[in-house]
Amino acid sequence: MQGLEFSLSFFSSPPLAWKSEMTNTRGRGKSLRYSVLGKKPAAGSGAEQPRTGPSNSEGASKVSLLKKVPALKDGDFTLAECTAILLYLSRKYKTPDHWYPSDIQKRAQVDEYLSWHHANIRANAPKTMWIKVLIPLFTGQPLPSEKLQEVMEGLSTSLKQFEERFLQDKAFIIGSEISLADLVAIVELMQPVGVGCDIFEDRPRLMEWRRRVEDAVGKELFFQAHEMILNIKELSNIQIDPQLKEHLAPMLMKMLK
Amino acid sequence: MQGLEFSLSFFSSPPLAWKSEMTNTRGRGKSLRYSVLGKKPAAGSGAEQPRTGPSNSEGASKVSLLKKVPALKDGDFTLAECTAILLYLSRKYKTPDHWYPSDIQKRAQVDEYLSWHHANIRANAPKTMWIKVLIPLFTGQPLPSEKLQEVMEGLSTSLKQFEERFLQDKAFIIGSEISLADLVAIVELMQPVGVGCDIFEDRPRLMEWRRRVEDAVGKELFFQAHEMILNIKELSNIQIDPQLKEHLAPMLMKMLK
Repeated sequence: MQGLEFSLSFFSSPPLAWKSEMTNTRGRGKSLRYSVLGKKPAAGSGAEQPRTGPSNSEGASKVSLLKKVPALKDGDFTLAECTAILLYLSRKYKTPDHWYPSDIQKRAQVDEYLSWHHANIRANAPKTMWIKVLIPLFTGQPLPSEKLQEVMEGLSTSLKQFEERFLQDKAFIIGSEISLADLVAIVELMQPVGVGCDIFEDRPRLMEWRRRVEDAVGKELFFQAHEMILNIKELSNIQIDPQLKEHLAPMLMKMLK
Repeated sequence: MQGLEFSLSFFSSPPLAWKSEMTNTRGRGKSLRYSVLGKKPAAGSGAEQPRTGPSNSEGASKVSLLKKVPALKDGDFTLAECTAILLYLSRKYKTPDHWYPSDIQKRAQVDEYLSWHHANIRANAPKTMWIKVLIPLFTGQPLPSEKLQEVMEGLSTSLKQFEERFLQDKAFIIGSEISLADLVAIVELMQPVGVGCDIFEDRPRLMEWRRRVEDAVGKELFFQAHEMILNIKELSNIQIDPQLKEHLAPMLMKMLK
């Protein structure tokens, strides 16, 4: 069997957080190879350990025609976009039903969240990381505090909707069991936490949900998947290629608009 | 069998464009009821004709907990988000395989496009409508032309990626057959056309793809689904509730930021 290959970034936790479902449940994921961009090779990195590819940028562009991470390569087949990768893996490895239920109404609720997520949680939460870490790193200039405040206000509106309209009084987004919707949501919401904007503080309902997600995924794997995000200060020690710096700085500024 | 009920807006063409697949293919969609917000009742409106609900705003809020359109009500089950609705309908009515192929790699390509779509085509194309029609209608003030130029530049970048990375030299996004990815893409791209920004002009590859989508959906249905978008000037004759105006104007301005 040909192995799967991932290229991940610092922010591609969903596939990583989910690897237990592919490695443990079916025992077929041993050929998974992770290529985590910008991460040092894990000591004794084996097939199931996060590892760097032959060259990070080379690894990424090989895997994805879109030149985007996360990206997946399965034989000759390449795939970008986090949610598409998760859905592909759920089908390929026939993961437990609760991740993407066969019940069409429950499945539709996962789809509904995944669709809403893009223009709301996804559009707001990662900006905290750009503002507090990435843009200063690539431009050498901190951004004015009003910019962070503006983003936090947008995120706050999204979180209110997330709690009132999706989470409600349920254990997880679609009911009593965890699904891909929770996984996609949590990893985005851990980004503000990593840069010191703890959005779970003062939001007890959200915090309880986070605890349930941690338990469902397994605390060890949860923190392994978010290790880089939660130790984001280490980024400042990374040497960045000046050409990459020049290329990314205006893109980051534009994404923030 | 309980009927399905839709609430649509002027911009909810995908479910409408797709109704032939539910009404003709399986002959089970005769109980579909459309509630198109802001549209006059069609002459002799029957079960399969677009129709207004008892009250537009009431109809919408009944259907969707998210108070969003498009929204679907199937018995006690409510669902928002266009792509979630399309996927639900494809499962419920077992539409032809090409719309959302059972082949996991082809299906993943649909998912990949749908995910990319949100932050690219969807994030840019509808703004042309807001700038040229909606914001002037709700605020009484036209926006400076630089704003439209900025949006058109963003859309142009997205269209370049759409052509080079998704469409390539294929007939449709995932290959030789039309899928939900094409449907979701085309209706968003008809919005700039409706306000006089013909993005198909000078893009022959995109224009050829549009023609193929029109043929696959059926020209009559295609233009029926886009009727309101392509006659958007009629909007200026609509009387808008002053309270709604007051409520929506700042939201529209914010969405444009």
